[in-house]
Amino acid sequence: MRTAMNCWLRAADYYRQAEFFLGAADPRRLVTFTKMERASHSFLAHLSPPGEVLEIPYEGASLYAYFVSAGTSTERQPCLISMGGLDSIKDEMWFMQARGALQRGISVLMIDGPGQGGTLRRHGIVTRPDYEVPIGRCVDYLMSRRDVDPSRIAVCGSSLGGYYAARAASREPRLAACVSHGAIWSIHEFWKNADERHGLAGHIKWVFGVKTMADAIERFKAFTLDGVLQDMRCPYLILHGGHDVLGMSQATRVYEYANAHGLDVTLRFVTPEETGAEHCQHDNPTIGQELIGDWLADVFGIDQRAVLARMQSR
Amino acid sequence: MRTAMNCWLRAADYYRQAEFFLGAADPRRLVTFTKMERASHSFLAHLSPPGEVLEIPYEGASLYAYFVSAGTSTERQPCLISMGGLDSIKDEMWFMQARGALQRGISVLMIDGPGQGGTLRRHGIVTRPDYEVPIGRCVDYLMSRRDVDPSRIAVCGSSLGGYYAARAASREPRLAACVSHGAIWSIHEFWKNADERHGLAGHIKWVFGVKTMADAIERFKAFTLDGVLQDMRCPYLILHGGHDVLGMSQATRVYEYANAHGLDVTLRFVTPEETGAEHCQHDNPTIGQELIGDWLADVFGIDQRAVLARMQSR
Repeated sequence: MRTAMNCWLRAADYYRQAEFFLGAADPRRLVTFTKMERASHSFLAHLSPPGEVLEIPYEGASLYAYFVSAGTSTERQPCLISMGGLDSIKDEMWFMQARGALQRGISVLMIDGPGQGGTLRRHGIVTRPDYEVPIGRCVDYLMSRRDVDPSRIAVCGSSLGGYYAARAASREPRLAACVSHGAIWSIHEFWKNADERHGLAGHIKWVFGVKTMADAIERFKAFTLDGVLQDMRCPYLILHGGHDVLGMSQATRVYEYANAHGLDVTLRFVTPEETGAEHCQHDNPTIGQELIGDWLADVFGIDQRAVLARMQSR
Repeated sequence: MRTAMNCWLRAADYYRQAEFFLGAADPRRLVTFTKMERASHSFLAHLSPPGEVLEIPYEGASLYAYFVSAGTSTERQPCLISMGGLDSIKDEMWFMQARGALQRGISVLMIDGPGQGGTLRRHGIVTRPDYEVPIGRCVDYLMSRRDVDPSRIAVCGSSLGGYYAARAASREPRLAACVSHGAIWSIHEFWKNADERHGLAGHIKWVFGVKTMADAIERFKAFTLDGVLQDMRCPYLILHGGHDVLGMSQATRVYEYANAHGLDVTLRFVTPEETGAEHCQHDNPTIGQELIGDWLADVFGIDQRAVLARMQSR
């Protein structure tokens, strides 16, 4: 069974790598994506308790999601809404955020938000600046569960999801903690000079629902934390690679603005010496999950010693 | 806590890498080894149930060992005696054999036998051909525990330990299963032309307790399965890299001899296509542990589904 779980998780990762490099219009893309999800589902089915495959109602369609509980009863647990960015998906959140949270007693809801994963591929739902709307639907869903503590729901987004998470937590008061796993101050500022030759141009146009990069750049303008972030009331962690291929200045901008507006904000650059200094700790995902999970556990007052005693620790 | 465990395990590995390249007579070697063990101990202390740090009585001295139970009560569990080879040690068995066994409901006793780890470094106890003697002391110890099933004790050795395990299981009738994780038919045949320029000459002389490689080659003669292996009565797995830097012929020799003498033997070469084809699956240790753990679970009639339901599965 363990071997089967390992194989399913590995298979999901292999299918994902194959899917990632297909064009948006390639008919093989959704087929491969679906095979990837099926492998994920088989992995999730063997967790204890089993992971749940969900569709969360959203504007007449749905957000594809997985819920994995950190508990074994209906006892209320804290929960992390976990998402990627421009081109990362719910299934990858296992490697980037979810496993580390679960190990620390935090349930996880891994989602494909607007512009992401199955939600983009099957429903054609593109991204939007006001990410508090889809995250609000996720909070609605979590509030309906008897095994989630409604006062301890957090959100974390990686890469471009660092913007999504911060935006959502600035406008959605039911969120009790926020992590930008890679911070973005302004997409427009970051990509205003990108053109059709940009390596991600095809994916950007797909995610933003536009035909040209010129149109995309126009759309980018609404994706900024300027005039928004000051409304965040919950503790906020910015976790950013100290050697991030995308640079450190966006993270610094977010931190300084948050600080100037009196937010409870923590900036953590991961140094090359400790490894995990690349974008979203892709060079050492374990360290990224440790930093996120430990920070959340502290904010939520979790006794990690008790969690460890409750769980097997292998 | 989880982060601390990860860090201790990582620290143990880092100290081990530092220790490995020091000469046998270097005064820093034992100091670094001891730091490595302390990091291991801190890791083990936080497992549930905690791993135990042991010294198993052996000829007026002791074999250094760790016991980690797969159960949470005094219920009797099957147990694997887990060891390395020429230059691998008990602490590394976590990555090579032990974690995979534990995940499948098999307790583990990771040992530094004669010629290995702390047993060599502190007591100066060198290797011996009749490895059933030290393994016999380990079986004595396990028989005294109320949480070990005396009818389901297995032995596994990696690399040169593939010889140790096969020799022990041929002469120690209380062993119920045997794994050569990398098979050796005859050390003499393998290394009879090695001289002082051999990359492992220093380590070989230390382990065999001799001053010259010529003396070592004389010692090698006793380390053969010829005339011994036919006495093995338990199921026997030979797991060997299909692209092993040490070749496949020793494994084939062991298998053919075992087969010719009517042993219940299984030969499994790991192919380059499935990864894990290198020596002892060093290129994919997960696959090595899966193959060993699944085989043992089958031999011992373990219901892996029930084990998974009992344990958290992260």
